[in-house]
Amino acid sequence: MSSSEPENPSSSTATPPEESGEKISKKAAKKEAAKLEKLRRRQEKEEEEEEASRKTASLSIEEESFSRNYGDVTLNELKSTEDPKAGKWREAVEGKEWTDVRELVEAMEGREVLIRGRVHTIRDVSSKKGFLIVRQSGSMVQCVVTESKENCVSVNMVKFVKRLSGESIVDVIGYVVLPKKPVTGSTQQVEIQARKVYCVNSALQKLPLIVEDAARSEADIQAGKSGANQDTRLNYRVIDLRTPANQGIFSIQGWTQIGWRECLLRKDFIEIHSPKLLAGSSEGGSAVFRLDYKGQPACLAQSPQLHKQMAICGDFERVFEVGAVYRAEDSFTHRHLCEFIGLDVEMAIHKHYSEIMDLVSELFPFIFNKINENCQKELEAIRKQYPFEPLKVTHAA
Amino acid sequence: MSSSEPENPSSSTATPPEESGEKISKKAAKKEAAKLEKLRRRQEKEEEEEEASRKTASLSIEEESFSRNYGDVTLNELKSTEDPKAGKWREAVEGKEWTDVRELVEAMEGREVLIRGRVHTIRDVSSKKGFLIVRQSGSMVQCVVTESKENCVSVNMVKFVKRLSGESIVDVIGYVVLPKKPVTGSTQQVEIQARKVYCVNSALQKLPLIVEDAARSEADIQAGKSGANQDTRLNYRVIDLRTPANQGIFSIQGWTQIGWRECLLRKDFIEIHSPKLLAGSSEGGSAVFRLDYKGQPACLAQSPQLHKQMAICGDFERVFEVGAVYRAEDSFTHRHLCEFIGLDVEMAIHKHYSEIMDLVSELFPFIFNKINENCQKELEAIRKQYPFEPLKVTHAA
Repeated sequence: MSSSEPENPSSSTATPPEESGEKISKKAAKKEAAKLEKLRRRQEKEEEEEEASRKTASLSIEEESFSRNYGDVTLNELKSTEDPKAGKWREAVEGKEWTDVRELVEAMEGREVLIRGRVHTIRDVSSKKGFLIVRQSGSMVQCVVTESKENCVSVNMVKFVKRLSGESIVDVIGYVVLPKKPVTGSTQQVEIQARKVYCVNSALQKLPLIVEDAARSEADIQAGKSGANQDTRLNYRVIDLRTPANQGIFSIQGWTQIGWRECLLRKDFIEIHSPKLLAGSSEGGSAVFRLDYKGQPACLAQSPQLHKQMAICGDFERVFEVGAVYRAEDSFTHRHLCEFIGLDVEMAIHKHYSEIMDLVSELFPFIFNKINENCQKELEAIRKQYPFEPLKVTHAA
Repeated sequence: MSSSEPENPSSSTATPPEESGEKISKKAAKKEAAKLEKLRRRQEKEEEEEEASRKTASLSIEEESFSRNYGDVTLNELKSTEDPKAGKWREAVEGKEWTDVRELVEAMEGREVLIRGRVHTIRDVSSKKGFLIVRQSGSMVQCVVTESKENCVSVNMVKFVKRLSGESIVDVIGYVVLPKKPVTGSTQQVEIQARKVYCVNSALQKLPLIVEDAARSEADIQAGKSGANQDTRLNYRVIDLRTPANQGIFSIQGWTQIGWRECLLRKDFIEIHSPKLLAGSSEGGSAVFRLDYKGQPACLAQSPQLHKQMAICGDFERVFEVGAVYRAEDSFTHRHLCEFIGLDVEMAIHKHYSEIMDLVSELFPFIFNKINENCQKELEAIRKQYPFEPLKVTHAA
């Protein structure tokens, strides 16, 4: 408050204080009081406005900082820029490593993680809370998005998450928490309390095939749940491949090869690749694909037999191959393929054909053990869609 | 000697001794002496014959036991029989394990080993001694065959070994010995003092291609040594494959794949196999092999690109493939193949394309180190025929 102000108006009246006496002094006092009151109100108003503008300003700063915690990743950020400040997603993930969803376990409680996966399903709990199940390969984790000033999660962020389309790719940053009761819709037994959610790539709102439908078992479909036609699945194979069972099948296919190779390499086999474009048919001649090789007739190999034997005559002693086999047979069964990957082995025998039987009786249990040791989750995922009895390897006494 | 015999003839003459007098006694004495002489000679002859027959008998026993130490393996023995007495080879190898030629080292001195390999070369030293170089895959060892009663090696066995045709498959049982001076014609620095040599499979006396010739370097050929034409080598590829350099090339090809897979599998890649029979061309359409797929036009894949990308869209995140690639290009250079094995990799990128560069800069040194650690002998074998500078992997500071 400026103490000199009340005197300025009085000085402007230019009345000598000695002449006015008591009357003048009363009038002057009233005037003075009114002026002061007016001034006080103005000042109060000004202060209020100032305070209000300060409040508005702080709110917009808060909103902006909250809004940096979600949104679509911009094209500029995705363009392999070196600038860590290219956008809010870039800033959020800078210096962080992605954790695989399958690696999220109870022991990580309280740790901040960054995960990437697809929007599997979304559950709307209230305007201030939603669940987002993120799926990466065959593994799923439930992310909880709750409005919270503490976590800088706004209602708008909850809305943003709920509007995400299924199969969109998202990055979620949040804390690993242990749910009060076991989570049923996910493979991981922890939840993520989400603090930041970014959409890396948005999927169409309506997809021709829903992964959940493609993943249904025969029993589920007969119980009334929606499934997916074989045709639809094959027409949209990239979506169909995302089902936990298909992820498992490819993983087990990979482990089968690992076991196959590990066992054979330990036994001094070497891996070869025989040609598949041959001048003649490998065996017989009826079920062979024929083609023109620069003016000469050629066939696709029906078997690596001849070349494996050539390798043995060429002193490799023990060879194996993992390679394509082509059979142009008209057998339209679901167990028949015109093109398949064959695991082939050929070895020189020292004195008895039982040597190859010894090999085989070691090789197969080795592969099966490899799969059992490394693919329990995958076997479980397949069993859920296509029930089967566990394989038992028994040896004759 | 029968002492009663001389009296028998005299008793048969029935002359009274008293009547004959001196004349009679002279005549009789002469007669008697002649008879005795005749008898003695007969007996001596009989004794000689007896002795000779005894000698022959003992010699034939010795010969037979010696002759069991060499010979051709009979078809009967090769027919995976369970009978350990089916023949001399079967008896000799019964209960024995084959040792690989490449595993024959100085530390094994004095040990009895059984090896199998091909007759690489034979050197005739004398009628009682010969050298046989046995080659197994790319490794060679010198076997010494010396006539020796102690070792039960007969001159006939030495002859048998010298008559073996090149490239025949032989089993040699003998002791590991250290040669007085380094052996130049073999890869192993020990020799085998052969005790038994069997020919498992006899090669033709005259082969269209000699491995030694196929193995010559350009420098050797220019220095006047005999080489082999490219055509001959390709026409008799099974023989050409036996050269140490070719054995090495295939071995290194195998180790390249081992390194490639080991590195990628550690980084959570999975191995896939994409189809090679496609409805359309993979890229462009000019250099594609076309064929008829049961009435529909089909192409051989020029690249696994599309299917690798489908796998990424199918959420495998990181995949690799080792598979055939077909390019119907008319490029007749020695660096161009219409069919080759491609090592392909595809991965989802998290935020920057440098992630694939990071992978590649780890992957290649990993493969090269794998080869350097495991293929020194193979590199040496290749270098001998096709000289090259050792590969150096340098990293930018």
